[in-house]
Amino acid sequence: MKLFDWTSLSASERLSALARPASVSDPTITANVAEIMSAVKTGGDKAVLDYTAKFDGVNLNDLRVTLTECKTAWDNLPQDQQQALKIAKSNIEAFHNAQMPQNIEVETMPGVTCRREPRAIETVGLYVPGGTAPLVSTLLMLAIPAKIAGNDKRVIVTPPMKSGKVNKAVLAAAYLCEVTDVFACGGAQAIAALAYGTESIPKCDKIFGPGNAYVATAKSLASQASGGPAIDLPAGPSEAMVVADEKSNPVFVASDLLSQAEHDTMAQVVLVCTSQSWANVISQEVDKQLATLPRRDIAAKSWGNSRFIIAENQSDILDVINAYAPEHLILQYDGADELVSDIRNAGSIFIGPWTPESVGDYASGTNHTLPTFGAARAYSGVTLEDYFKYISVQKLSKDGFKTLS
Amino acid sequence: MKLFDWTSLSASERLSALARPASVSDPTITANVAEIMSAVKTGGDKAVLDYTAKFDGVNLNDLRVTLTECKTAWDNLPQDQQQALKIAKSNIEAFHNAQMPQNIEVETMPGVTCRREPRAIETVGLYVPGGTAPLVSTLLMLAIPAKIAGNDKRVIVTPPMKSGKVNKAVLAAAYLCEVTDVFACGGAQAIAALAYGTESIPKCDKIFGPGNAYVATAKSLASQASGGPAIDLPAGPSEAMVVADEKSNPVFVASDLLSQAEHDTMAQVVLVCTSQSWANVISQEVDKQLATLPRRDIAAKSWGNSRFIIAENQSDILDVINAYAPEHLILQYDGADELVSDIRNAGSIFIGPWTPESVGDYASGTNHTLPTFGAARAYSGVTLEDYFKYISVQKLSKDGFKTLS
Repeated sequence: MKLFDWTSLSASERLSALARPASVSDPTITANVAEIMSAVKTGGDKAVLDYTAKFDGVNLNDLRVTLTECKTAWDNLPQDQQQALKIAKSNIEAFHNAQMPQNIEVETMPGVTCRREPRAIETVGLYVPGGTAPLVSTLLMLAIPAKIAGNDKRVIVTPPMKSGKVNKAVLAAAYLCEVTDVFACGGAQAIAALAYGTESIPKCDKIFGPGNAYVATAKSLASQASGGPAIDLPAGPSEAMVVADEKSNPVFVASDLLSQAEHDTMAQVVLVCTSQSWANVISQEVDKQLATLPRRDIAAKSWGNSRFIIAENQSDILDVINAYAPEHLILQYDGADELVSDIRNAGSIFIGPWTPESVGDYASGTNHTLPTFGAARAYSGVTLEDYFKYISVQKLSKDGFKTLS
Repeated sequence: MKLFDWTSLSASERLSALARPASVSDPTITANVAEIMSAVKTGGDKAVLDYTAKFDGVNLNDLRVTLTECKTAWDNLPQDQQQALKIAKSNIEAFHNAQMPQNIEVETMPGVTCRREPRAIETVGLYVPGGTAPLVSTLLMLAIPAKIAGNDKRVIVTPPMKSGKVNKAVLAAAYLCEVTDVFACGGAQAIAALAYGTESIPKCDKIFGPGNAYVATAKSLASQASGGPAIDLPAGPSEAMVVADEKSNPVFVASDLLSQAEHDTMAQVVLVCTSQSWANVISQEVDKQLATLPRRDIAAKSWGNSRFIIAENQSDILDVINAYAPEHLILQYDGADELVSDIRNAGSIFIGPWTPESVGDYASGTNHTLPTFGAARAYSGVTLEDYFKYISVQKLSKDGFKTLS
């Protein structure tokens, strides 16, 4: 943990206090991914199956998981888990339904009519990572807007487990969200399959979802190719900035900091605190909670890279937030509601003691696919409009044409 | 000109009839651009000035063009040109004002409030190409939405002419559109300056605008870097698809085809016609008009790569349009109004005899920065929302937290 006093820093020291770790793109990964993508482009399903054997250690005959298997997984899910998924789905639907894009029509001058009409993208590919990540909520966050938008094909790819099967909760969620296709494959080979199409996997117009460096590199390479698919967001390690004043509850603040830290060892944690003495109180509480965490090895490692920034007044706090442009911004701060309108750069904001980051990750209704690494300066998190594109339409009458000419 | 009869083609022949020319990314260009970008990153203004001497052949002392110079250019512009710019601006404003994003607030369940709030991106860089392109309208299309959105800095870069000066009409338009900064530089060095910032050029959060292969490569490289700026759209050669039936006026149809063909030698032109005999009539009219065009050398070259597709019924016509996903789609077709709702993939649609593509390029109000090379399957043209990003905000009451937990 590094401590900085904002007012005493020069402009360049401020930049360095808020700098992300240097992100060196690994040429070996890029070369490997390019090779995998090229093999899938020519080899189709067989190439994907071969890479699945090589990287996931399972020999499959068929990449497709049937919708019947998804329904069975749903039917076998304990009722309390069904209920939890239904509540999350209902909240995510309510928030994303409110984002439905509408037709716009303007007569810009007599006889000159201009319209803008949204159209759902035809085929979307949704990557749901394996491993220890919150798989099920990723599926909800990506597939529910796709269903609302009305994309014709809503294709899930997700890596199989050692057993050769896909996580049952993911399949149950796929059933609940009415996806159209599920395939048991992951990594760069799954992204390549979505980008180019194979015998069984449809070629997708846009690819969504988080993943490791191989997945992120594959998405980037696919989207750069002429005629390649669009992608949702640039990739980066998850991060949270917590703003806490002396009215905050140190137990809650420490819990917010650590819930971010335990995501993975690359996770970024920044505390902005109104006094050094309160930062010490929070730090002690963190140490106490850290000792009891199940994932304390991971949390301790990213906690070691965390930063505390002392910013005593509201103007400095705003400077710090807008300069860092955090993915998650948690305001355990007395004037939080008033602060929000002056915040320019952040992915998602969590206000007050009863809004821990975990509620947004799972179930409040907002999307948890958010811009990292300062991308919040120019990018939004995933919104319903990302599943649409707009067509503009113009029609001039003969008089309109004469006036405009 | 190649002729295809849609109904007689197999699925793979249809794909190849609508294929874009293979776009091979040139490793020499990529290497050159990477070197230029690296030099500008470390060398700042001096590096940009050096490249301007090398590539544009002019030695400048200062990259900045003052706003006073812009005002003088406006004051000296002939009144009819002032009037034409004002009309175009008024139409573009009317259409883009109607796209203003609004706050959304939803109580997704009791005590769980979710909001989405737009924020204007702070600093946008707008590239206005030199050469023979419609410079002034590009400036209008990029700078007017930026002013409406309220981006704090709206930075124009545009290459100087051999005289060392920037085109006076561009400066006049910059004054009219109230941009905040103008710099006389172009090419990859200008994009690098926007991406990294220099002593005089502000680092930009997002970069907009068309350009040659160097500019496009620089935008792509900048946007791929971690923490790099966002960009508007993938680049590609301009293209138009014209749908004409036997009620269309061959003079108008030929004029639409040729106005696209004369953009540049890479421009793509596709005619979809309801009968072969009518295609012949149009073809003869094209030959007649081609002979009289001032830019007939360019037009003849791209015309040589054009394709005629015979599609006799509405269902086939829709298939052709949606499979090709044209940047510009011109409907000189009796049932055009009814067709639009079934068109999934297109950048901008021009309906009827009095709506040539050129009106959208300049002045109807719609944006002419549009997706090419089939990108219309997943991308929109530039819209007002591209100058904003959204922040999501959530706040739970104690009861809301308990319910959700």
